[in-house]
Amino acid sequence: MPANPSFDILGELLPIRGVSLGVAEAGIRQANRKDLLLITLDENTRIEAVFTQNKFCAAPVIVSKEHIAKRRQGDSTVAPSIDCIRALIINTGSANAGTGKEGIIHARLVCTELARLLRCDVSQVLPFSTGIIMEPLPVEKIILSLPIAVANLSPDNWCSAAETILTTDIVPKAISKKILLGGSVVTITGIAKGSGMIRPNMATMLSYLATDAAISQPLLRRMVNNVANNSFNRITVDGDTSTNDSFILIATGKADNQEILDQESLEYIELQNAITEVAIYLAKEIVKDGEGATKFIEVRVEGGKDLDECTRVAYAISHSPLVKTAFFASDPNLGRIIAAIGNAEIQDFDVYDLQFYLDDLLVFENGRIADNYSEQEGSCIMDKSEITIRVSFKRGVSSATVWTCDLSYDYIKINADYRS
Amino acid sequence: MPANPSFDILGELLPIRGVSLGVAEAGIRQANRKDLLLITLDENTRIEAVFTQNKFCAAPVIVSKEHIAKRRQGDSTVAPSIDCIRALIINTGSANAGTGKEGIIHARLVCTELARLLRCDVSQVLPFSTGIIMEPLPVEKIILSLPIAVANLSPDNWCSAAETILTTDIVPKAISKKILLGGSVVTITGIAKGSGMIRPNMATMLSYLATDAAISQPLLRRMVNNVANNSFNRITVDGDTSTNDSFILIATGKADNQEILDQESLEYIELQNAITEVAIYLAKEIVKDGEGATKFIEVRVEGGKDLDECTRVAYAISHSPLVKTAFFASDPNLGRIIAAIGNAEIQDFDVYDLQFYLDDLLVFENGRIADNYSEQEGSCIMDKSEITIRVSFKRGVSSATVWTCDLSYDYIKINADYRS
Repeated sequence: MPANPSFDILGELLPIRGVSLGVAEAGIRQANRKDLLLITLDENTRIEAVFTQNKFCAAPVIVSKEHIAKRRQGDSTVAPSIDCIRALIINTGSANAGTGKEGIIHARLVCTELARLLRCDVSQVLPFSTGIIMEPLPVEKIILSLPIAVANLSPDNWCSAAETILTTDIVPKAISKKILLGGSVVTITGIAKGSGMIRPNMATMLSYLATDAAISQPLLRRMVNNVANNSFNRITVDGDTSTNDSFILIATGKADNQEILDQESLEYIELQNAITEVAIYLAKEIVKDGEGATKFIEVRVEGGKDLDECTRVAYAISHSPLVKTAFFASDPNLGRIIAAIGNAEIQDFDVYDLQFYLDDLLVFENGRIADNYSEQEGSCIMDKSEITIRVSFKRGVSSATVWTCDLSYDYIKINADYRS
Repeated sequence: MPANPSFDILGELLPIRGVSLGVAEAGIRQANRKDLLLITLDENTRIEAVFTQNKFCAAPVIVSKEHIAKRRQGDSTVAPSIDCIRALIINTGSANAGTGKEGIIHARLVCTELARLLRCDVSQVLPFSTGIIMEPLPVEKIILSLPIAVANLSPDNWCSAAETILTTDIVPKAISKKILLGGSVVTITGIAKGSGMIRPNMATMLSYLATDAAISQPLLRRMVNNVANNSFNRITVDGDTSTNDSFILIATGKADNQEILDQESLEYIELQNAITEVAIYLAKEIVKDGEGATKFIEVRVEGGKDLDECTRVAYAISHSPLVKTAFFASDPNLGRIIAAIGNAEIQDFDVYDLQFYLDDLLVFENGRIADNYSEQEGSCIMDKSEITIRVSFKRGVSSATVWTCDLSYDYIKINADYRS
């Protein structure tokens, strides 16, 4: 495959033709902070989404799924559906999860009011919430602020949007990227939020990626799952899966590229690669901004029998509080890693068939510490802010990578203080 | 069933006829602390054990299993086997796990030397280790100290033994109990260690329970599993399963009771109940002494379809770092509990069929916060040092209880500093 002449735009967020964004201060949890984001989409925009697998999924997740299902009935594999999603409304401060039937009514009320303002059908609006669970959504405050968000709509508001959706996050997470697709310039811009309660299962906390590329609805659906599985579904901060996880992929079709209709085409592959890169960037930013995180850790498991066992080993390491605190302390107490691997329920597992490395330093082989391992070198690597743990089996050709962070005093502080 | 006139002996540890204990300072990790425990058993004593399921189980676990298997070949369901286990040798400071074939050789060397001193067969000795993983066992120090431990042997050394096996534990864990069994007084004494890396899977870190009761080998085997499943297998501090978990049940048969041969007999049930009580006491002590723990939390799940789903829900709550930090902060941010329940992968689950309580305070029902819930009452309960979370489904009649603790700054501190 020829190298794609893509270029990242880190400092600057590029508008996506067909997408406008408006923000407002609704005073949901705190005064004087942006907490309401409206994203409007031009007609004929296609969107696909993946949502949390948490059984207590939030009311807005339930309503968004309903509205997407309704829209789908009118979709076509050739032409864009005429009645597509036209708006996304996102609030922080309150998750509207564990709020029962009242929560669903609240989410629908917000959609109804916004549909009235935008003169579209209520089912063309998707609601999203993030924040405290099991508290009623302050629906009046949100509805009162909708006109302000509408008045603020602009294609250039991506940066403000990225700030608006944060909760315990310290830094906004956003990126733009341009690629050439069959001679046409295509733009991708994405934002995300997330810092704790991060062990996405089909999606991260909240992420919205938009491109102006033209692509068929079935291929966009295929792409959203592929992208999620290789980015947001590969991270963990604390092993807790949120009730509100949502990842939304938007394609406005305003670029000049010929509509992508074939999943084997170079254009599909290049677009998916570029969108995956954007999603991985955002997913890694979530981990780096993980609550209390001082270190970014890549856990790579190679030579496994299948993806499932590689993933299980990678998560067993990534979720172990003892491994995470050792990394926080820069203490190469690396026996904790083998204890974690030993708990991953791998069948027919011979401990003598395993090696593991810190960066390029071989730590463990033949069932014991490696002959040439030196604690001094181990300490030097543990002291770095980005570290790779590489586990190598001799069982097969599968591999999996998970990104995680350490566990520090500040994780406790942030989560002990969250509501105060 | 008639009430059993049993009485606990908390202040005083009672000797068990047929069991002697000796300790020594081998200087394994620190100077001037007891770190080697020898337990000797009279002839005809029966023992059964359960060990960690961790795939990287420690060398002493492998050797102990081998020796127990050898002994079993000679056992009989009627008479005690003539060639029973005669000694247990336990060191702290080094886990002898992740130490390869050399680790096995080391564990066998210790057994061989002890067998020479005690004039028994090497296979009559069981080795145990706890401490740092992936460091070589200082086998010379241990062998040099064996004669000191032998010279120290006494039936009255249980208290000293309980202190010797500790690692990050703050308090020793030990208890005695007497019961009347068919007119004969039977004594049970147990000790345990464990504070972190606690999510036992068939056993806790290390626990040794001895009774003088006479009971057949098959019933003792049955009992050790039943007791483990209702005590040590019901606790978690941090979700990490140790490489060295071992729970040993010893029956010397020196009491005057008629040998228990029937699992339906009142005597079997009463003895199992009493031993389970001792094991639950020790298991709870491990949680209360959990690394950094400030609160003891009982998680009880009722009305589930089967034990498996109740246990999964109880562990999902008990393992959630967000739930644990909320309890540390006495912050009734209880939406985190429903997020945890939602991640327990319960099939066909209707969120409207669930209630949960803090102690006796109904927090959640009908998919939302309970009408009469008051945050002030929630805060009062969260402020207590012992709290029950009770989850009530309307799916069936199964239930499960797990004991856990909160997650505090000190967990991080203890585990960041462990080796220094």
